[in-house]
Amino acid sequence: MEIPSLHDPQQLAAFYRDALLQDVVPFWLRHGLDHEQGGILTSLDRAGAVIDTDKSIWFQGRAAWMFATLYNHVEPRATWLSAAQSCLDFLERHAVGDDGKLYFSVTREGRPLRMRRYVYSESFAAIAAAALFRATGSERARASALRYWQNYLRYSFDPALAAPKTDPQTRPMRGIGPLMIAMVTAQELRLNLGEVVALGRTPTEWIAWCVDEIERYFMKPERQVLLETVGIQGEVLDHFDGRLLNPGHAIECAWFLLLESSIVHSPRMEQLGLQILDWMLARGWDHEFGGLYYFRDLDDKPIQEYWHDMKFWWPHCEAIIATLLAWRLTGSERYATLHQQVHDWSFRHFPDPEQGEWFGYLHRDGTVSTTLKGNLWKGPFHLPRMLLWSWKLLDTEPTSLLALSSLPPRRPD
Amino acid sequence: MEIPSLHDPQQLAAFYRDALLQDVVPFWLRHGLDHEQGGILTSLDRAGAVIDTDKSIWFQGRAAWMFATLYNHVEPRATWLSAAQSCLDFLERHAVGDDGKLYFSVTREGRPLRMRRYVYSESFAAIAAAALFRATGSERARASALRYWQNYLRYSFDPALAAPKTDPQTRPMRGIGPLMIAMVTAQELRLNLGEVVALGRTPTEWIAWCVDEIERYFMKPERQVLLETVGIQGEVLDHFDGRLLNPGHAIECAWFLLLESSIVHSPRMEQLGLQILDWMLARGWDHEFGGLYYFRDLDDKPIQEYWHDMKFWWPHCEAIIATLLAWRLTGSERYATLHQQVHDWSFRHFPDPEQGEWFGYLHRDGTVSTTLKGNLWKGPFHLPRMLLWSWKLLDTEPTSLLALSSLPPRRPD
Repeated sequence: MEIPSLHDPQQLAAFYRDALLQDVVPFWLRHGLDHEQGGILTSLDRAGAVIDTDKSIWFQGRAAWMFATLYNHVEPRATWLSAAQSCLDFLERHAVGDDGKLYFSVTREGRPLRMRRYVYSESFAAIAAAALFRATGSERARASALRYWQNYLRYSFDPALAAPKTDPQTRPMRGIGPLMIAMVTAQELRLNLGEVVALGRTPTEWIAWCVDEIERYFMKPERQVLLETVGIQGEVLDHFDGRLLNPGHAIECAWFLLLESSIVHSPRMEQLGLQILDWMLARGWDHEFGGLYYFRDLDDKPIQEYWHDMKFWWPHCEAIIATLLAWRLTGSERYATLHQQVHDWSFRHFPDPEQGEWFGYLHRDGTVSTTLKGNLWKGPFHLPRMLLWSWKLLDTEPTSLLALSSLPPRRPD
Repeated sequence: MEIPSLHDPQQLAAFYRDALLQDVVPFWLRHGLDHEQGGILTSLDRAGAVIDTDKSIWFQGRAAWMFATLYNHVEPRATWLSAAQSCLDFLERHAVGDDGKLYFSVTREGRPLRMRRYVYSESFAAIAAAALFRATGSERARASALRYWQNYLRYSFDPALAAPKTDPQTRPMRGIGPLMIAMVTAQELRLNLGEVVALGRTPTEWIAWCVDEIERYFMKPERQVLLETVGIQGEVLDHFDGRLLNPGHAIECAWFLLLESSIVHSPRMEQLGLQILDWMLARGWDHEFGGLYYFRDLDDKPIQEYWHDMKFWWPHCEAIIATLLAWRLTGSERYATLHQQVHDWSFRHFPDPEQGEWFGYLHRDGTVSTTLKGNLWKGPFHLPRMLLWSWKLLDTEPTSLLALSSLPPRRPD
C-alpha cells in the first residue's frame, strides 16, 4: 500500500477522508448497528460478525457522539443522524442505574450487567447528547447533556462521592484520567452548547482548572514526563502505579491542550502541550520495532502489567492527531517528521487489508495478537475521530469542527 | 543446559530438588524476607532488588505455607520455620479488615491499601496456619486455620455474602475458581489438621461436594472441555466470559482431582482428572511456538483479553505436576511423553540463567516480556510447589506429603 505523506497534504487529507467515509464508518454502520434492539454492538470479529451481544454503555455514548459529529461537521446524512439517535436512545432507556449512575455494560436487550466505580459512561453520554442537540435542536438532548456532565463532575471530583480503589487514608492519590476526560468533555459541550455553567464553572473555566491541576500535579519538567498517578501533593509515588507511564494517554492529553491553546489563545498552554508531546513520544517510541509501547516505567524498571510492550491502535491514533496539530500550530518541520513516523508505522501495521477497519492489538513486533475488530473498549471512536480530525486539520476548506479555534484552514499548496 | 528426563527418574528427582533448595527457595529467603517489618516482599526485579514495597496478603499466606511445608516435608530447618512464622504473623497483625475479611494488599508497614470482592487471601491464610500448626503444634495456629477456612467458605458459597461482579438478576453465573481453591485448601487442612468440620462438612466432604459441582456444571464431555464460567444451570454462556478457557487453571484442577483420587480411592475421580488433563493440554498447547497459551476460546473465536497468547510460568508449573502425577497413577508412557514436552519447554524458557529463579511472563514466541521475578501475583508459590511435588513424586523414599495417599514412593529403578 502506498502511504501518502505531508509532502502532499492534499493527498493526505483525501487519504484520511476516504479511510473514514469509505472504510471505517461503513464497517460500523453495516456490522454494529442493532436494528432489532437499537444501539450498537461493538464485539465484532475480523469480518464484522457479532461474537458477543453484550453492549458497552461507553460505546452507546461514543458512537452516538461520533455519528452525530459526522452529521454536524461532514454532511447531514440521515443514516448518521438515526444511528446517533438510536445509540443515545438505547442508553437513555437502559443504562441508568438506581442511583442515577450509568451502567458499564448491559445485555443486548438492555438488562443491567455491570456497574463500575468510575463515571466515564457519563462523560461519553454528555458529549453524545450535546452533539445531538447541535444536530437536532432537541431541548431534551440539551438537558441530558448537562445532567450527565454534572454527574460526571460530581462523581469525579467530589471526594464524598468519588470511590477510590486504594485506601485514601493510607495513600491518598490523584489520577490524571478524570481531568483529561473533563477537558475533552468540556471542549465538546462548549462547541455544541456554548458556555453552559455546571457546578459553578463554564466549560472554559473547567478546562482552565483541569490544565492547572495537570500542570501542578502531573507534569514533572525535571524528569521530562507526564505522570498518570501521583500523591495528593503531586509527589512521585515510588510504586508500580506511581512510576507507570502511559505515553499514548499523555499524548492524547497533549492534543487536548494544543487544541485548547488555539481556542483561548494561550501560548502557555501550547507550550505545555508541545512539551508533553515531545517528552512522551520520546519515552514511548520503540526504537527496535517501531510503534508506541503501551506502558513505560518512569525509571525504566520492570512494569507490573505483563502486556506493557504491546502496540494498541488508540495511542497511535492520538499520536497522529497530536503531531499533526503540533505541526499546524508551529509549522515546525520536526512535527511533520514525527507525524510521518507515527502515521507510517500505524498504517503499515493496524489496517486489515482484507476486511477493512483496523486491528486493535498487536504484539510488540507489530504482528497481530487478536483479529477482533471491536469489544467493550474498541468501537467507532478513536480511529474515526483521528481520521476526521486529521482530514479536517489538512483541509483547505473552513470546518465547523474548528469553529472556536484560531487555527485557520490549511493554506492551499 | 542439559535437561534431564523421565528416562532417568532419579536424576530428574535430583534436578527438581536442587532447583528448589539451591535456587528458588534461597532466592526468596535472600531477597524477599522483610527483616525490618516482618513478612515477605514479592515485587522484585531480575536481580532480586525490591521495586515496590507494597505487600501482597495472598503472598503472606502463600509464602508462610510454602516455607512451613518445606519444614514439615523436607527437613526442619529453623530458617524456614521462622520465615513462615514471620509471614503469618504479619498477616495476622495487619491484614484483617473491619468486617473480618482480609485485605488484598497493604503497605510495607502493614497499613491497608486494597480490599477486594473475593476471599482468596483467606484460603491462603488458612493453609499457612494449618501448615504452621503441624510444624509447631500451636493451638492458636489451628484455630486461625479453621477461622479463615470458615470465612473462605462463607464468602465464597453463601449467596447472601458473595458479591458477584455481574448483576445476578440478569445473568446468574457460576465460576470454577472458588471450587478449585476450596478443594486444595480442604486437602491441606485435612493433611495438617485432620478431618475438622467447617460449616457442617469435613474436608473430604467439602472436596467431594466441589468435585460433584465441577463435574455437574463445568465439565462438558460433548465438547471435551472444562469451562471457567457457566450459567447457573451449567449452561454454556455464548459471551466472551462464557467461552473463555484457561488451560493452565483447568490443568491445575486436574491434578487436585488426581491427588484426591489417590486419597479416597476413587477411580471415577481419577478418570475425571485424566479427562480434564487430556482435553485441556490438547486445547492449550501452542503447536507453533510450544508452551501453553494463557487463554483459549471454546469455539476458537477471538478472545477479549489481548494478552491471551502469552506464556505464563504458573500454568506450566501446574502442567508439570499434573502430567507427572498422571504418569505415577497410570504408568502410561503417554503421560511420560507429555510430561517431557511441558518440562522441556518450561525449563528451556522460564529459568533465568544469570540471576536464578524463573521469569514469569513470556511472549507467545517464548521471549521474555518482563524480567520481573515477582509482584503481587508471583512469588514463592507455584514454582517451588511444583519443584517440591515433582521431586517427591519421583522420590524412592516415602514422603509425609503423600501420607494420606495410596500412591507409594516410586519404585527404585
